[in-house]
Amino acid sequence: MRIGRDILQLTDLLESFLRNQGEEKFHYSELSKVFKRLGRLDKDKYREYIKRMPTNILGDILLDLSDRNLEDALEVLSLKKLINSIKHLESDDATDLLEDIEEISEELAHQIMEGLDNKNQEEIQLLRSYEDDHAGAYMQLEVFMANHNETVRNTIERFRVLKGNGELENISSVFITGDYKNLVATISLDDLILFDLESPFKEILSKTPEKYRSRYVRDTDDIEEVAKLFKEYDLSVLPVIDAQGYVMGRITADDIYDILQELATEQMYNLAGVDDDVEGENRAMDISRKRGKWQFLNMCTAFFSASVIGQYQETIEVLPALAVLMPIVASMGGNTGNQALTVMVRRLGMGEVDNTNWDQSLAREMIVAVTNGLIFATLVGLGSFLWFDNYKVSMVMSVAILMNFTIAGLCGTLIPILLKKLNTDPAVGSSILLTMITDALGFLIFLGLAKLLIF
Amino acid sequence: MRIGRDILQLTDLLESFLRNQGEEKFHYSELSKVFKRLGRLDKDKYREYIKRMPTNILGDILLDLSDRNLEDALEVLSLKKLINSIKHLESDDATDLLEDIEEISEELAHQIMEGLDNKNQEEIQLLRSYEDDHAGAYMQLEVFMANHNETVRNTIERFRVLKGNGELENISSVFITGDYKNLVATISLDDLILFDLESPFKEILSKTPEKYRSRYVRDTDDIEEVAKLFKEYDLSVLPVIDAQGYVMGRITADDIYDILQELATEQMYNLAGVDDDVEGENRAMDISRKRGKWQFLNMCTAFFSASVIGQYQETIEVLPALAVLMPIVASMGGNTGNQALTVMVRRLGMGEVDNTNWDQSLAREMIVAVTNGLIFATLVGLGSFLWFDNYKVSMVMSVAILMNFTIAGLCGTLIPILLKKLNTDPAVGSSILLTMITDALGFLIFLGLAKLLIF
Repeated sequence: MRIGRDILQLTDLLESFLRNQGEEKFHYSELSKVFKRLGRLDKDKYREYIKRMPTNILGDILLDLSDRNLEDALEVLSLKKLINSIKHLESDDATDLLEDIEEISEELAHQIMEGLDNKNQEEIQLLRSYEDDHAGAYMQLEVFMANHNETVRNTIERFRVLKGNGELENISSVFITGDYKNLVATISLDDLILFDLESPFKEILSKTPEKYRSRYVRDTDDIEEVAKLFKEYDLSVLPVIDAQGYVMGRITADDIYDILQELATEQMYNLAGVDDDVEGENRAMDISRKRGKWQFLNMCTAFFSASVIGQYQETIEVLPALAVLMPIVASMGGNTGNQALTVMVRRLGMGEVDNTNWDQSLAREMIVAVTNGLIFATLVGLGSFLWFDNYKVSMVMSVAILMNFTIAGLCGTLIPILLKKLNTDPAVGSSILLTMITDALGFLIFLGLAKLLIF
Repeated sequence: MRIGRDILQLTDLLESFLRNQGEEKFHYSELSKVFKRLGRLDKDKYREYIKRMPTNILGDILLDLSDRNLEDALEVLSLKKLINSIKHLESDDATDLLEDIEEISEELAHQIMEGLDNKNQEEIQLLRSYEDDHAGAYMQLEVFMANHNETVRNTIERFRVLKGNGELENISSVFITGDYKNLVATISLDDLILFDLESPFKEILSKTPEKYRSRYVRDTDDIEEVAKLFKEYDLSVLPVIDAQGYVMGRITADDIYDILQELATEQMYNLAGVDDDVEGENRAMDISRKRGKWQFLNMCTAFFSASVIGQYQETIEVLPALAVLMPIVASMGGNTGNQALTVMVRRLGMGEVDNTNWDQSLAREMIVAVTNGLIFATLVGLGSFLWFDNYKVSMVMSVAILMNFTIAGLCGTLIPILLKKLNTDPAVGSSILLTMITDALGFLIFLGLAKLLIF
């Protein structure tokens, strides 16, 4: 009953969209939400309606769907319809969708590519030629440029035509190029609107050359650095240029939203030993394999820590209370180290900590580790005394906690800094390394001290 | 030597800025970077130059500095200069800076507030009246509006004057209001530029009413939802309205960069038992206290897990190999659970997982947990057999690993979902709760099975 009502509601929405097309009542993202739900509830209706979507919005919807939903859609959509949908997309979106399709069927992606005109093909080839983390891979090629000899009036006229043709969308700035087609300035529309219509840009720029000086990024710049630039200078668009200074495309605020979120997800996932590329795909086997790699490493370090305990089997045999208490030392050390590690990884990632000020962070972390180490050494010592009524065991506990806190704070801070210095990602593998240290050293200190002091 | 050269380089940069003011060669964020470095290297020079900064950029610089640097600056800046710096800031920045100053000296903040004119005072009071997570707390009040009866020409003329006065910056859209000053449409400048100058907006809007229909947020909306809206609809600006539909202010792309990053940081930090509000402040004592709260909880759960082991002291006494192996079960279960937990927390936070599809995630996580549980049960069983040459111990190990993986996957997925259903943050406390379960149950299953099967 409930499901039947839900399906009816979704198809009603789609019918209403199909009736009122052109009035722009719906954003594509609203429609793709409807299709995502419909895809779960009723595959037939899902296929029926995806076939009926007009090509001017179908590409955007397909781009939003999960792999599984996209696969379903590809089964019922004609090649011609797919080609036309991709033609309606902006260059970066067209490239993304084609890549999504390629993952499902290389053959189909190839056919679609063949069906596109030369300009679209070249654009897609260009965008695909960049590495995943290059600015070029994120830019869109649709930009609005004007030569510095052009008048403001002429530029606005040209803009009117291009917009009317649907060739340009969401333009907030004009990129001004010089005699050699090189980027010389960026003028935002809120400035353009106030200029004398008959002036060529050259004249306007010559009066206040610094005012419209353009920030830009290179197509091969690291996208992470680009995102930082947007954040630091509160930008909403940046031109992307090549080695010769030609304008290749632009990166806009909505790209940056995605990048900032992806980067954060990547950091979080790496810390937990999870791969952000496969997690979104819902393919349990890929996820198992990727997570398994880290679990395997964790198994190795766990056996290593266990081997430390193995050295003290006889000690434990005599005083099993040690086996009861030793996980407390390891667990609390791990927790403490993980706090420091997470803060360092995040702050390194955001650029708040770097070569110039990491020593401040280290100093701070050491104060925190030793302070809390002293406090918890006291508490844990007291707790274990109340429990086992053996002041030697309690003393060993206290000293082990203090030492493990100190080591945890030190390693939690230094591991990501060192990884960064070695030019690797400070989030990858660092928490497993840290846990190994706090576990193995935790057991070693506790059991070693016990053997030394108690027997 | 090295430090001397660095200081000279920094002061040279500042001298060059002071000489060429008005040519806009520097962005404030470049200057604040210089001051941050100078503040570390040479306090006297830092104070000398901060005093010499002009008020039209001083506020922006102060806003970027750390608490400690700001405190230093406040010691040498006159009240009058502070007041003028704040006057130059946009409403949201002025409010933020005043709040930063208030944390250092309530008295000084009060004096500055008194020195501002009524309009500034009211703006700051309004912005401060919102809760921290309300859209209103993030908006800036500087907006450009036009009544729907106004002509395009008139609007542009008004815009010219406001921009000339420096009252408006970074405007990309005009908010159109109706007869009752209520928001009726948003027109971006790339559309405005193409309109017939003599038409009133009413006429333009009546032709395609849906095209300029304005998205908006309420001032009391949750800022996290607002950020999702920007991401979902690729927006660069949104008007903020009150309950009556009046335009209160706007939220722009640069606010969203900050919010997306803050939200991600908060999630990561919460997972690790760290408080994002105090971590940035560099006050070791505050950090110690906040982290200590979670360490205390961790201590309690560690003692609880230890108490489980305590029940099996006699078993361990007879077969100390159990004490050696038991941390492997706990550690690998914790690792597995943490993978699932991190993915769930992040996907819940980004809205990818919700009420409608959490069962898919659970199904996926269970497949992953059981698959890898079987694999690692085999590996760990084999490893422990090679080590201790006791097939009973190895069998217990294998079963315990499989069971703990399954429990870890189940709890890692369900804990955040349940916390979310209870309307609390799925990241807060969830990893400590999870670790308690995987530790305590890991020990219980392993030692319990051992007692049952071996003796």
